[in-house]
Amino acid sequence: MRIDIITVLPELMQSPFQASILKRAQEKGLVEIYFHQLRDFSTNKYKQIDDSPYGGGAGMVMMIEPIDKCISKLKSERDYDEIIYLTPDGETLNQKIANTLSLKENLIFLCGHYKGIDQRVRELHITKEISIGDFVLTGGELAACVLADSIIRLIPGVISDEQSALTDSFQDNLLSPPIYTRPEIYKNLEVPKILLNGNFAKIEEWRHEQAVEITKKKRPDLLE
Amino acid sequence: MRIDIITVLPELMQSPFQASILKRAQEKGLVEIYFHQLRDFSTNKYKQIDDSPYGGGAGMVMMIEPIDKCISKLKSERDYDEIIYLTPDGETLNQKIANTLSLKENLIFLCGHYKGIDQRVRELHITKEISIGDFVLTGGELAACVLADSIIRLIPGVISDEQSALTDSFQDNLLSPPIYTRPEIYKNLEVPKILLNGNFAKIEEWRHEQAVEITKKKRPDLLE
Repeated sequence: MRIDIITVLPELMQSPFQASILKRAQEKGLVEIYFHQLRDFSTNKYKQIDDSPYGGGAGMVMMIEPIDKCISKLKSERDYDEIIYLTPDGETLNQKIANTLSLKENLIFLCGHYKGIDQRVRELHITKEISIGDFVLTGGELAACVLADSIIRLIPGVISDEQSALTDSFQDNLLSPPIYTRPEIYKNLEVPKILLNGNFAKIEEWRHEQAVEITKKKRPDLLE
Repeated sequence: MRIDIITVLPELMQSPFQASILKRAQEKGLVEIYFHQLRDFSTNKYKQIDDSPYGGGAGMVMMIEPIDKCISKLKSERDYDEIIYLTPDGETLNQKIANTLSLKENLIFLCGHYKGIDQRVRELHITKEISIGDFVLTGGELAACVLADSIIRLIPGVISDEQSALTDSFQDNLLSPPIYTRPEIYKNLEVPKILLNGNFAKIEEWRHEQAVEITKKKRPDLLE
């Protein structure tokens, strides 16, 4: 997989891709990440990429021309499966979207900033708009990191089979049951006896009951 | 505000706090961020902080002792308003939660990793569990960055008044109307005429209609 990330703040996005699993995924050649500084595509000597909105109002708007130049250049070099704009008014990211995107080959992520992008960019290039949730961030950069992380970890070979059991939490619509590890007693807090008796059928039954109970209590919407 | 972040991967979280608005918020003294490497609180010469789950099963569990030591040390130094565990089975982050947390003084964020934390940590210390969405990440670190960003930008003085208009998108339950900036015509794509005629009352009316229309189409749940 190849992901091209277009941003005015590539420096903000360095460390998440240079540590842990995302770093190893790149070292193993399973994913290539390229950052593109949008200001390099400005036609202006001040490297300006934003301007005031037509019709007035607060905030700056990201101009169509630098974005079009950057995306057009990338498109001339290879085919892209999706050109994704990270924006609070996009479709809300969930595990199903992450699963689907993890099967793609070439993706572009466009990070919104300021008030957002000129609407015509959406008409011209964007094939998918994604939001990571109903909250406002200072820019699309962290959303792009989150989207990349959720996708890349699903690429076969990126994480070990043991770790990939983790995905089950949203794959089966149940939250996880409580988990415990050593020591058996810590400051008077004990591990439930059932987990210590070695009866794995009973343990699985208990875990399933706990998972259903917790999901009912915390996220009944997942059971609907 | 002071945020203490407990993690096994502080290096993953560096750049988001060293760029743009989060960097300036710290330089202005509006927020202090402290990272705590959980391994420094291990009682083990291998700096181990995880162990196998009681009752068997895949994945490793973060042990109670190092986390308890770290949180207890912090609590002995000052009072905390909330001790937040970032976990997929927590309450889903939204703008209202971000608003509430932005009024607090001292927060601890505990980043989950591996299969999660020993349940007894939750009983002993955690006051709030937050998920950023229904998807699985490689760890709680990016979720902590997102939560921090959503909160810090709301602290008075962090962003200019002009930028803070941005928050309105989720505050009033409407998505944003389309926005445009120069040039007026780009590759045959034109700016809607209404935005060019200088009739600001009509423009506001058009924008509101568009916002309602877009919200109806993309996120009818917000209007309920």
